[in-house]
Amino acid sequence: MSVTVILYDRVMTRWEPDARGRLQLAAMELYVERGFEQTTVAEIAERAGLTERTFFRHYADKREVLFFGQDELKERFVSTVAHAPDDAAPLDAVAAALHAIATDFESRRPWSQTRQTVINANPGLQERELIKLAGLSSAIAATLRDRGVDEPAASLTAEAGISVFHVAFQRWVAADNTRELAQIITESLAALRTVTANG
Amino acid sequence: MSVTVILYDRVMTRWEPDARGRLQLAAMELYVERGFEQTTVAEIAERAGLTERTFFRHYADKREVLFFGQDELKERFVSTVAHAPDDAAPLDAVAAALHAIATDFESRRPWSQTRQTVINANPGLQERELIKLAGLSSAIAATLRDRGVDEPAASLTAEAGISVFHVAFQRWVAADNTRELAQIITESLAALRTVTANG
Repeated sequence: MSVTVILYDRVMTRWEPDARGRLQLAAMELYVERGFEQTTVAEIAERAGLTERTFFRHYADKREVLFFGQDELKERFVSTVAHAPDDAAPLDAVAAALHAIATDFESRRPWSQTRQTVINANPGLQERELIKLAGLSSAIAATLRDRGVDEPAASLTAEAGISVFHVAFQRWVAADNTRELAQIITESLAALRTVTANG
Repeated sequence: MSVTVILYDRVMTRWEPDARGRLQLAAMELYVERGFEQTTVAEIAERAGLTERTFFRHYADKREVLFFGQDELKERFVSTVAHAPDDAAPLDAVAAALHAIATDFESRRPWSQTRQTVINANPGLQERELIKLAGLSSAIAATLRDRGVDEPAASLTAEAGISVFHVAFQRWVAADNTRELAQIITESLAALRTVTANG
């Protein structure tokens, strides 16, 4: 099954077939076909049957197509941690956020897989992804401090949460995976607790 | 006390006052005075009393001055994990490596502080630093797998180790810190074990 078919199936039927979605789909097709570096905004707009001007109304540049939605992800993460029960342990508050996000992601696995393929092929995009994760970690640490968690516990809990997310996400997008992200996160959290348990 | 005095005191008296060290010192002075972006290789060479050609014999570019030695760091990390006792728990093997590295770093705190100031002022350098840490994490995970640790435990242990290193390092270079890196690492590892303990 081609990337187009996979993405259309998920993106075009579940999302509004709006300009943003068409541009996103066209960009991803081109990134897979030609590589990220070799694709121009003009080509993306043409493939989507739209103008470059329309592209720039939706995205600052061709990289932003891959990272669009990260503010919402951070907001979702932070607000779930912030609204955890007052007596929740810090890592349990972070785990609640991981599960909320897993639910959001589950229907978008084909998109996430294709996106990951594009990012894995480009060191500059990998750096961007790491900066995004570092920003998420800082935001979670700040939220935990607001909940009264001291340092270094706040930063270490946030980093642990991001590590679980990162490791679980890689396993979830793997070609041979058949399990849901939420299940893999639960398993990864348990594995983290095991490896950090005092011997 | 100026950066020059601090760095001379540590760099020039403890290391050989060789071309590499002079270039490193000159580069760091200029990065602090003018900013990383505003400094040219020609200026670094001039400040060091050497030629540009000599600079390029030692460093590929001005960024490498800040990241020189990372292969040795990775090798030190990996070999310490690899040579931990067979029955050492994965996180204990990583903890042994963290302590070996802490000892290496302790005498270089002024250098590390100045370097961190330069990196914190430049997003591109921060990305480079994150890529370096991600590469360290991957290398440690591979070493743990060679020791028979399964996934996701190997990756999660490696990420936990890098998180502890990262968080402890930030605390160690903080202006008001008076404690040794090894001590901060011990404390951070204990904090990680506490936040990940089953409630």
